[in-house]
Amino acid sequence: MKKLKIAVLAGDGIGPEVILQAKKALGAIALVFGHEFTFEDALIGAVAIERTGKPLPDQTLNLCKNTDSILFGAIGDPMYDNDPESKIRPEQGLLKLRKELGLYANIRPIKAYPKLMDASPIKKEILQGTDFIIYRELNGGMYFGKKHLNEEGTYASDLCEYSEEEISKITHLAFKSAQERRKKLTLVDKANVLETSRLWRKVVQKIAKQYPDVTVDFLYVDNAAMQLILNPRQFDVILTDNLFGDILSDEASVIAGSKGLMASASVGEKYSLFEPIHGSYNEVKDKNCANPIASILSAGMLLEHFGLIKEALTVFQAVEKAIINHIVTIDLKVDSKFGTNEVGDYIANYI
Amino acid sequence: MKKLKIAVLAGDGIGPEVILQAKKALGAIALVFGHEFTFEDALIGAVAIERTGKPLPDQTLNLCKNTDSILFGAIGDPMYDNDPESKIRPEQGLLKLRKELGLYANIRPIKAYPKLMDASPIKKEILQGTDFIIYRELNGGMYFGKKHLNEEGTYASDLCEYSEEEISKITHLAFKSAQERRKKLTLVDKANVLETSRLWRKVVQKIAKQYPDVTVDFLYVDNAAMQLILNPRQFDVILTDNLFGDILSDEASVIAGSKGLMASASVGEKYSLFEPIHGSYNEVKDKNCANPIASILSAGMLLEHFGLIKEALTVFQAVEKAIINHIVTIDLKVDSKFGTNEVGDYIANYI
Ligand SMILES: CC(C)[C@H](C(=O)O)[C@@H](O)C(=O)O
Ligand SMILES: CC(C)[C@H](C(=O)O)[C@@H](O)C(=O)O
Repeated sequence: MKKLKIAVLAGDGIGPEVILQAKKALGAIALVFGHEFTFEDALIGAVAIERTGKPLPDQTLNLCKNTDSILFGAIGDPMYDNDPESKIRPEQGLLKLRKELGLYANIRPIKAYPKLMDASPIKKEILQGTDFIIYRELNGGMYFGKKHLNEEGTYASDLCEYSEEEISKITHLAFKSAQERRKKLTLVDKANVLETSRLWRKVVQKIAKQYPDVTVDFLYVDNAAMQLILNPRQFDVILTDNLFGDILSDEASVIAGSKGLMASASVGEKYSLFEPIHGSYNEVKDKNCANPIASILSAGMLLEHFGLIKEALTVFQAVEKAIINHIVTIDLKVDSKFGTNEVGDYIANYI
Repeated sequence: MKKLKIAVLAGDGIGPEVILQAKKALGAIALVFGHEFTFEDALIGAVAIERTGKPLPDQTLNLCKNTDSILFGAIGDPMYDNDPESKIRPEQGLLKLRKELGLYANIRPIKAYPKLMDASPIKKEILQGTDFIIYRELNGGMYFGKKHLNEEGTYASDLCEYSEEEISKITHLAFKSAQERRKKLTLVDKANVLETSRLWRKVVQKIAKQYPDVTVDFLYVDNAAMQLILNPRQFDVILTDNLFGDILSDEASVIAGSKGLMASASVGEKYSLFEPIHGSYNEVKDKNCANPIASILSAGMLLEHFGLIKEALTVFQAVEKAIINHIVTIDLKVDSKFGTNEVGDYIANYI
């Protein structure tokens, strides 16, 4: 029997409704396998700003530091997006959390589900057999470098920084993952222009010697953005920096047919956080039509992370069952009658 | 009768072979319409480093400053790509040229050719009717900000900078283009994280008031990378910074079916340069299989730029004729018997 204390940060938009389904799935797993999972809710994002003035209240951060893991919903609100002058923004909560907890690796698996290929804008022949994983650095780069806006508001800058140490940590993780997969690692950078990219290339070339069974490839980010669509099967493990990883992993979500299927794990030395990549999607909030699968798969990744492999597999199988039986939301099947809740219930019951 | 003196910078890889075809097409136009185009070759890129030690020899820069326009081939060599420590790189030649000539706007039209939809990895239903244009800022951002590598080679940085003035110049161009098209402009940025992006958003919101007939939309770059594939028809004019423009325009090339079809214009106050976006593609150099269409279409954009509208249309029609009659290279038709030269000859003869 395993005891896990899990902080639940539902956040904004569709966050709360999808995370509810992930909790249901975890509850079912606990019941069947005899574990004890306890959940504790905390505020983050726009709702946290509204209630406390801060996107990441201290209480939330403290809770996260005193739990075994974190389930995360979504963050962001259009109110802040269109006001470039606002000093406080929901996203700062997530960025601060990633940094404070040292969650330096964001791991996003991309897979073409045979049953869902019709939902993808890409042709079946291209998708077939696609199965790769993106390792995105999450604690550095342009996200966290010094920002500057001059007093007149006419000049702005963002600094992109990387140290060998930051690059090394995630590079080792990515190589280890490649060793357990098809033994191919692709570094995506812009080494023909950026100094930081050249440092990435140098560090990865150096570390590669410790993993002689893994083949290493280098791709410029512009080319990678093209190759992801032209020939996604070529990839096994993609390693890249924070900003490029943000862009490429969202782009790659079209392979799965819907962003609503994409789970992610963010891990560090001590902490871990599991999060669907779809974002807050406020337009459909509370309409019972948001796809809960990404959130449920993220819960599956949480189980995997704690060595509960059979349990994780059960979650993944339940999700596949829902997909095979077309118990899915409208993003996957235009005329579907099933909502967020129904899909979540089906999966929890199946478990 | 129009007289034009054109500098020809063939560069590396497949540059020389494709540019030869663009010259043929321009030669045919001159003949038919009674213009006088003179060409003068100059070195740039890896070949220039080899012969002069510099990626952009002074002689080349001087020539460019004393001609009416520039035809550009391609740049880059794998020899430099895999050596992150090399101080001199071919790409520096192109970047310096863009900066010295003040070519601040890179304009890339993206169109789904009905005859070529089978060549695209994306489904026909999605592609149909796609027709947009990317305005990429070309003189600023991370490309030109201060770069730093510490002495031990363990820390690197790149500065991304933008001023209101830089943003304004290209923003006006993009709005003017939107006014002549479907009157929609989409700014792509990462305003939820980057200070420079927030400046872009502010400046574009301000300038938008001068173009009340144009609808303005804002998209985060991660979402944009997804939307380009999910629903490319939604775009009319995309405006974005140097780095995001690099990534998104390469990604968008999958819409046309091949990068070998993508032309671009780089313009500034005084100078202009026309360039296929495919790059040097050294693997197929001198094999007579590189697609010359992007280079020929770039020559067409050159004609357009100088007000030779009928002439440009003739080039575009000749290209369409080649595509309709399947006189294309193997990137567009796997079993094609036509090479770079044959396609180029066909198009020149048709003109
Ligand atoms: C919300 C935003 C700050 C975030 C990011 O850019 O990292 C999101 O897009 C993601 O990918 O998790
Ligand atoms: C060759 C390289 C420096 C260049 C760029 O990144 O701008 C190329 O990719 C392009 O898009 O023209």
